[in-house]
Amino acid sequence: MRILIQNVLLDGRTRDIFIDDGIVMEISEKCLQKADKIISGKNKAALPAFINGHTHAAMTLFRGYADDMPLKTWLEEKIWPLEAALTEEDVYWGAKLACLEMIKNGITVFSDMYWQWEATAKAAMEMGMRGFVSAVFIDMFDGRKSMEQIEHNIHLFEIAKKYEPHVTFTFGPHAIYTVSRESLEWMREFSVKEDILIHMHLAETEEETAFSREKYGLSPVEFLDSVGVLSNRFIGCHGCVLDEKDCSILKKRDSSLVHMPVSNLKLAVERMFPYSLIQEKGIPFCFGTDGCASNNHLDLIETMKFASLLAKFSTHDPTMMAARETFDLATKSAAGIFGLGDWEIKVGNSPDIILVDLARPELMPDFDLYSNLVYASNGYIVDTVICMGKVLMENRQVPGEDEILKNAVKTAKALVRR
Amino acid sequence: MRILIQNVLLDGRTRDIFIDDGIVMEISEKCLQKADKIISGKNKAALPAFINGHTHAAMTLFRGYADDMPLKTWLEEKIWPLEAALTEEDVYWGAKLACLEMIKNGITVFSDMYWQWEATAKAAMEMGMRGFVSAVFIDMFDGRKSMEQIEHNIHLFEIAKKYEPHVTFTFGPHAIYTVSRESLEWMREFSVKEDILIHMHLAETEEETAFSREKYGLSPVEFLDSVGVLSNRFIGCHGCVLDEKDCSILKKRDSSLVHMPVSNLKLAVERMFPYSLIQEKGIPFCFGTDGCASNNHLDLIETMKFASLLAKFSTHDPTMMAARETFDLATKSAAGIFGLGDWEIKVGNSPDIILVDLARPELMPDFDLYSNLVYASNGYIVDTVICMGKVLMENRQVPGEDEILKNAVKTAKALVRR
Repeated sequence: MRILIQNVLLDGRTRDIFIDDGIVMEISEKCLQKADKIISGKNKAALPAFINGHTHAAMTLFRGYADDMPLKTWLEEKIWPLEAALTEEDVYWGAKLACLEMIKNGITVFSDMYWQWEATAKAAMEMGMRGFVSAVFIDMFDGRKSMEQIEHNIHLFEIAKKYEPHVTFTFGPHAIYTVSRESLEWMREFSVKEDILIHMHLAETEEETAFSREKYGLSPVEFLDSVGVLSNRFIGCHGCVLDEKDCSILKKRDSSLVHMPVSNLKLAVERMFPYSLIQEKGIPFCFGTDGCASNNHLDLIETMKFASLLAKFSTHDPTMMAARETFDLATKSAAGIFGLGDWEIKVGNSPDIILVDLARPELMPDFDLYSNLVYASNGYIVDTVICMGKVLMENRQVPGEDEILKNAVKTAKALVRR
Repeated sequence: MRILIQNVLLDGRTRDIFIDDGIVMEISEKCLQKADKIISGKNKAALPAFINGHTHAAMTLFRGYADDMPLKTWLEEKIWPLEAALTEEDVYWGAKLACLEMIKNGITVFSDMYWQWEATAKAAMEMGMRGFVSAVFIDMFDGRKSMEQIEHNIHLFEIAKKYEPHVTFTFGPHAIYTVSRESLEWMREFSVKEDILIHMHLAETEEETAFSREKYGLSPVEFLDSVGVLSNRFIGCHGCVLDEKDCSILKKRDSSLVHMPVSNLKLAVERMFPYSLIQEKGIPFCFGTDGCASNNHLDLIETMKFASLLAKFSTHDPTMMAARETFDLATKSAAGIFGLGDWEIKVGNSPDIILVDLARPELMPDFDLYSNLVYASNGYIVDTVICMGKVLMENRQVPGEDEILKNAVKTAKALVRR
């Protein structure tokens, strides 16, 4: 599909952008190419789309079901009993709702870890997004379960081709306190052989570190390094409890992190993502919303504001994580981590593109677009979303929205009644 | 004006609400009253409107002009030079933009402290809002300046009647490091005589506390208590650096606080609002956005999420400041502080009312409206705003929006060029 965006603000100038099959072919003052679809960019700015580095998409089903509770009660009495009953159909509608919400907030790429892998993969493909989808891998240090999970993952890896190019299979070992060394060793081998990303919860709480020190005599990062699983294919999610040594290891292995400030605050973890240390070491990182049970909102613009403001507060330095840097972390840096190439809107690149509506009170005056985006806005400013060369949203309308909302709500209510 | 809202969700049930001259006259399943204006409440919930406990409305003009800078550079090199040149016309357009943005986010009441008092009062009145408007009072411990400011405030108090019932005159002593004891003593007397609220920055930074200890040998709260200025008419804005003793004094004097988490994080203050101590003492408090230079976004729903999540994180307890409590702080508690009576939508009360659109992906499923509001939404879910018995916004349309945007942007750009 050939898309022509006319008269849009791009890097401070009014431009036409011509996209053919997802590739930016021309950026000029007046583009004369023939297009299948012409979009007016008047009073809009073109930006690379947002990348959600970590979520559990289908947990939209549990939004608002059990908030403000202690973690243990929440998990054991509320979430796990519901999750144990989740069917593929349930996860499908939950993931569809998540995809709809993410598109509405200008997110075209998400990295997921959840049950019923195919349901999420199908949802991502149908919605036209890019999903890096992993199946939660938990063996609880049980050899039989480890074998089952390994077989299941091999099966998923094989069928994943059905969902290309929208879906990329990734490994999703849950955490160091739920996955055995043996399973991690197997994943390491398979991921090297097949070039698969490993997406894992890491260093979220002090309890996790205490577990690791007791079981292995090592920090979570040191343990994973001892297994040899850290590499440029490894993405650690959370990274709150990291010290200087952990960060040196992550840097040396070229591994990445996903920072999820909203989830961390809501679950009241003990420590905040050590931004200045991570920045100093040069460890690549991006942002994630986490799932809707621990954030409730899949809006990466909201997450950007939390991240930037917490970086300033935690370092007592208001110059930290400035607006443009924050925006780049949510787009360009994330694209680097997920191997999506140069995510800038330039000829020859193929970033997903969003148009944001500049005619909003909160975006005025327009001294600095990035500052306005990060500090004064939210997902509602996104008007148009283009992913892999197709228009997923225009004028904030996503095809099929009503059906998704109806079925997702029906599914969630039925789950609770079971 | 008689307004009939039909089939709206109110406290979990579908109801008609009949309002006459701002007073809720009937709440029933089917109201047969004749109305001048009928509003469909289908797929919407009726809620009391939000109250913004502290802002500097016209600072919308500086949004995005100078972010990510050290406080001193920001003030001395960027903000103060611009503020020194502000005309009444400038402040008027800045305040109009702020009012527009607040209405769009479901805020009908705001407490303001800024220059060019009449410009903000006029903006609040014209927009149909309720403004508690104070003139910044700064004398820098100079007797002559103190006299000037006192005369100016007496003048404003006298002309304030012009702006009733929309505007209430309040005192706005800037802070203990910019206002002399003598001026505060005068305000104390005048505020008792005329029943005027005193709205003051308080305990924002450790520097302020250090100043107070050096000059007066007392903490800021102890100093204000020694002046006798603390009472149920006193509203302290920020309240980050408060200890047990300060809180006991505030409680004893029946004074209130305004918590502004976004501003505090962005300016990277040393300490966070001590929520658990303040809650334990039972000091009334509400939320404020602060001005657009230190928050950038006048969205109290966003502020609620920051406040609730920071309360959880700072206490390491995810049950703290639960969703419903957070919502009540932003509405009912704030109404108590500003003397607006019972702010609940009940027959005989006269709260301002907003309708929020429930047909949004982020509000689904609908297990808990308050949880969805606080953790999953933002100002864009507000569809309709009713203030003092008049409809200020319907279907997200506010009359005169384009003119306000145009003039505010023109004003801001001209300011920078001066």
